[in-house]
Amino acid sequence: MKEAPVFRVGLDDCDKAHLGSLGFVLRRYPSHAVIARQGDEQDRIFVIRSGWGCIFTELMDGERQILDFPLKGEFVASRAFDGEAPESFIAQTELMVFEAPAKALLAGLARSPNLAAVLLGAIARQRAILVQHLTNLGRRSALMRTAHLLLELGTRLEKANSARQLGFECPLTQYDLADALGLTAIHVNRMLRELRERGYLEFRHGSVHFVNREGLERFAGFDPGYLRLPGES
Amino acid sequence: MKEAPVFRVGLDDCDKAHLGSLGFVLRRYPSHAVIARQGDEQDRIFVIRSGWGCIFTELMDGERQILDFPLKGEFVASRAFDGEAPESFIAQTELMVFEAPAKALLAGLARSPNLAAVLLGAIARQRAILVQHLTNLGRRSALMRTAHLLLELGTRLEKANSARQLGFECPLTQYDLADALGLTAIHVNRMLRELRERGYLEFRHGSVHFVNREGLERFAGFDPGYLRLPGES
Repeated sequence: MKEAPVFRVGLDDCDKAHLGSLGFVLRRYPSHAVIARQGDEQDRIFVIRSGWGCIFTELMDGERQILDFPLKGEFVASRAFDGEAPESFIAQTELMVFEAPAKALLAGLARSPNLAAVLLGAIARQRAILVQHLTNLGRRSALMRTAHLLLELGTRLEKANSARQLGFECPLTQYDLADALGLTAIHVNRMLRELRERGYLEFRHGSVHFVNREGLERFAGFDPGYLRLPGES
Repeated sequence: MKEAPVFRVGLDDCDKAHLGSLGFVLRRYPSHAVIARQGDEQDRIFVIRSGWGCIFTELMDGERQILDFPLKGEFVASRAFDGEAPESFIAQTELMVFEAPAKALLAGLARSPNLAAVLLGAIARQRAILVQHLTNLGRRSALMRTAHLLLELGTRLEKANSARQLGFECPLTQYDLADALGLTAIHVNRMLRELRERGYLEFRHGSVHFVNREGLERFAGFDPGYLRLPGES
């Protein structure tokens, strides 16, 4: 199945034709399928069409550190341009992704500076997300970082028109959150209870409900500027 | 002063001419100068010629999380392609950097797929470094992450021909290391003492000496594959 990914940005018809010519193929992965494994040769790039992805590093002792959960419309490129994947990429839920060979993309860049700006903007946004996750782990308390991540995921889904201001469907377990937040699942459980008791949010039955979003954003020091999409004003 | 940065990769003469035409300007910053501040409009890209840089996020409570110390030959792009800087960039030591407008670079990409591959490779490498720092904070013990960072910095300097296998000149204080490792300076001090007592390394008078590098790499789970330069086999 061939189809081009849609970026929410100002591409003209000529750029869209270039994008369509890059050889993106739409593929479906069942939940928990491994799409790329850390250390394997990796020469594809991906754009999520629907579902939740998960990228993580695996440590020698079998632990994992989740780096991010790529969502609808987002780009997964990691080290596609020269060799082995520095991280694993799996389907957190059933996942539809556009895939293209990294080399085709390089050729595409050469044909359209607009497309190059969009691509580099998308890569920079994914990097800015990693930077916030790093800041979460290093300098935000367990409670603040739990709040910050949930606010971020909600905001990203809103920008992809997949969530409302009030909350979002969240397929993550407390184990997943723990591996993303550098905590144990028990600790995450306690943090979610405390966020509920403080009247900030409720997370149950696979759904996050922001009870007091404004207060939560203030508490977590959450400034959504880094989630601006390429071309978004 | 105009001069083009040298990437250690397979660019042909034509690519080098393209690189030279992108408008890189060599600038000198004194130690601790602010080159780009978080939240400011940011439309430049940088390649370090000599010295140590430092990129970090500033939190509302005045704390900072150091993301990385960009070194000789390395690329600093963060969010140069669409607006405000998500992080601050300062000179850790006196710093010589090549600067170019991000827009000129986009035009350059369009002229040479080779150059585009080198640029994307350099961005991907800086991202792989962030990923390891994130993994340090989330899933490596204080002792392991201290060892991992020092091994990484030594390896990066070696690849830039600025260090030997035995060790490297290191201008970082224990406060800098603390802000990079998510620890306090007192904790870093204890970790450095423990690494010395275990016979792994000595860090004093601004110099890191690897006493037992092989053992240290094993202990820290350090695999230097992610530091491969674009085009390096």
